[in-house]
Amino acid sequence: MPNADELVAIAAEHDRNDPLAAWRDEFYVVDPDLAYLDGNSLGMPPKRTFGRVDRLMRDEWAGGLIRSWEHWLDMPQRVGAQLAPLIGAQPDEVAVHDSTTVNLYQIIRTAVRLRPDRSVIAIDPGDFPTDRYVVDSIAAADGLTVRAGFEQLDDVAVAVRSMIDYRSAEITDIAAETARARSAGALTVWDLSHAAGLHPVGLNAAGAQLAVGCTYKFLNGGPGAPAFTYVASDLIGDVDEPFHGWFAQTDQFAMGPTFDPRDDIGRMRIGTPGMFSLIGAQCGIEVSAEAGIDAIRAKSIELGRFALECCDMLGLTTSTPRDDERRGGHICVNHPDARQLVARLAAERNVLADFREPNVIRLGCSPLTTRFSDVARATVAVAELSG
Amino acid sequence: MPNADELVAIAAEHDRNDPLAAWRDEFYVVDPDLAYLDGNSLGMPPKRTFGRVDRLMRDEWAGGLIRSWEHWLDMPQRVGAQLAPLIGAQPDEVAVHDSTTVNLYQIIRTAVRLRPDRSVIAIDPGDFPTDRYVVDSIAAADGLTVRAGFEQLDDVAVAVRSMIDYRSAEITDIAAETARARSAGALTVWDLSHAAGLHPVGLNAAGAQLAVGCTYKFLNGGPGAPAFTYVASDLIGDVDEPFHGWFAQTDQFAMGPTFDPRDDIGRMRIGTPGMFSLIGAQCGIEVSAEAGIDAIRAKSIELGRFALECCDMLGLTTSTPRDDERRGGHICVNHPDARQLVARLAAERNVLADFREPNVIRLGCSPLTTRFSDVARATVAVAELSG
Repeated sequence: MPNADELVAIAAEHDRNDPLAAWRDEFYVVDPDLAYLDGNSLGMPPKRTFGRVDRLMRDEWAGGLIRSWEHWLDMPQRVGAQLAPLIGAQPDEVAVHDSTTVNLYQIIRTAVRLRPDRSVIAIDPGDFPTDRYVVDSIAAADGLTVRAGFEQLDDVAVAVRSMIDYRSAEITDIAAETARARSAGALTVWDLSHAAGLHPVGLNAAGAQLAVGCTYKFLNGGPGAPAFTYVASDLIGDVDEPFHGWFAQTDQFAMGPTFDPRDDIGRMRIGTPGMFSLIGAQCGIEVSAEAGIDAIRAKSIELGRFALECCDMLGLTTSTPRDDERRGGHICVNHPDARQLVARLAAERNVLADFREPNVIRLGCSPLTTRFSDVARATVAVAELSG
Repeated sequence: MPNADELVAIAAEHDRNDPLAAWRDEFYVVDPDLAYLDGNSLGMPPKRTFGRVDRLMRDEWAGGLIRSWEHWLDMPQRVGAQLAPLIGAQPDEVAVHDSTTVNLYQIIRTAVRLRPDRSVIAIDPGDFPTDRYVVDSIAAADGLTVRAGFEQLDDVAVAVRSMIDYRSAEITDIAAETARARSAGALTVWDLSHAAGLHPVGLNAAGAQLAVGCTYKFLNGGPGAPAFTYVASDLIGDVDEPFHGWFAQTDQFAMGPTFDPRDDIGRMRIGTPGMFSLIGAQCGIEVSAEAGIDAIRAKSIELGRFALECCDMLGLTTSTPRDDERRGGHICVNHPDARQLVARLAAERNVLADFREPNVIRLGCSPLTTRFSDVARATVAVAELSG
């Protein structure tokens, strides 16, 4: 393969100069030779998670038993406060709870109720499936109309959008698009699943109103770690979320006759939080916070540039944006045999990527764990196997 | 304290003859002298959970990484199948997922849609808060009426009921009450939170249609372990649950344009399951299944009888039913200073009970971990402190 050796050498040089390289040591790596490029579906485990989960089991559950709920009760908000600076929000604007799907449902229905005079929800028909299915189900139940795309917004109640596209990695300008929707009278719900832990996002600076996202991708929270909800502080007093669960109740253990929601982000909570999954989210968020989101984003840009350089030198086709400002954390290589190539990368080359319909090989670069040499090895392998 | 020594001696004799006594060794006990009578708020940790969580972290997450989702994807249904016989259901009628509050919302809205010609939801105004708040929120959003109590059912869409009352421990006859509602054209949603893992329930035998419950109480699944949903097999084809999340989709990774729900209990799933919390639920369910739900129920009855005997001999007031068939897994001692007494039991006597408004000291007897001597020591302590 022409250029392969050269790319491997360039990658090694990048790895030597990578200011975040040492952060990989914070993670439990079982197979150091594996090129793990699926961290944007499931991040790797921080080493600290092991000890913290063990402490949760031994000291807090077994030792403290029910008494530990004193400490656990507000964990979703404490972990939310830790996540907030990573996405440009205030500590009291974020709670970590439930799943992205549940939180999407909650925040979209919440948003719809804030625009009772409108009956259209706008979404990109190419957006992630659960976003689309949730929008469709809410529209069907509440007699609303779903509109494809965001050109016309002046009758839209809520625009539901992903900040970073799960296939192309294209970044949408959330400040510009939130402002455009706002000036048309529409609210915007941002899905940050492919952005949180990778990009500074800047929710407050963008004037963002409502957002959700997951913690198991770039935030390395673990399989099915809980998602999060963001509500801008100037909106929180107005929102009436649909669930009215007892963990959103002002004086929860008074168990009073009627629901009286907390006056802060706690009102977006629903039921009893799963502490094991939440502690995983907390550990992942901590590691990202310590490494620094700006340094993470800087390395993400370098990884992306290098991956595109590899694609170009190896003759691979990609639809991922060239402009750093418009590119998220993965590179998509387009190939008609993408599905089969992803399987062969795993079976023959110890490279884990993932396949997305119809023709996408997604190479996810997670800045705290992905090496430039992983990118070189993966792209060379794609070129060799498809050549 | 008269009778105290006698009760302690009787308790010791019961403990020697307890066929389930050895099951306490399956649990990680930090303080063997603690009388832990709050297992119906948070069960104790099975020892096996420690190893299984560790394996999940090391082998499945760190080792398998994204590949482990092949194994994880159907875990909510596999764990549901393990739980099913403990509540008298078929393996394909139960899924373990999300929280009780989310599942209540889901199942109640699902039920309401199955009775589109009716507009009343019936609930006991003394039921658990999250049940009441969720019913109120659905009624408010969908323009339905909430009725207190179950006397008149002929215009009711859904009756939402707890099988075992969280304060008095009174058991409702789910067969009789489901039949009565059914003959009036109403569906019944059973909340089994204080029954699952304690009582055989017998959902199929009772003709039960819909149910939810939690796994962190008598099933010892851990803090915030996921809840479960039961839908009778003859109903599953008809239900249209409100969320339409991608984990309920027939061919999930085709990521097709429209939602096409699975044809089995999997359609009640919503988003990405938290694997750490789910593995805890699985371990707890396994221990209960191995001990046997009939043996658990038999010991529960003996613990309750003995606790009532203690109350009588010590002059304590209780509103817990005397009839074994109508009594669940805890004893409630009524006392005007209940709140203060619960605090003193913990601080001065190493007894953990809990307080429920307005005047209830709840002594939860969890048959796999509670000793008769715990019950004797706790009731004697209540009598002494309040005497």
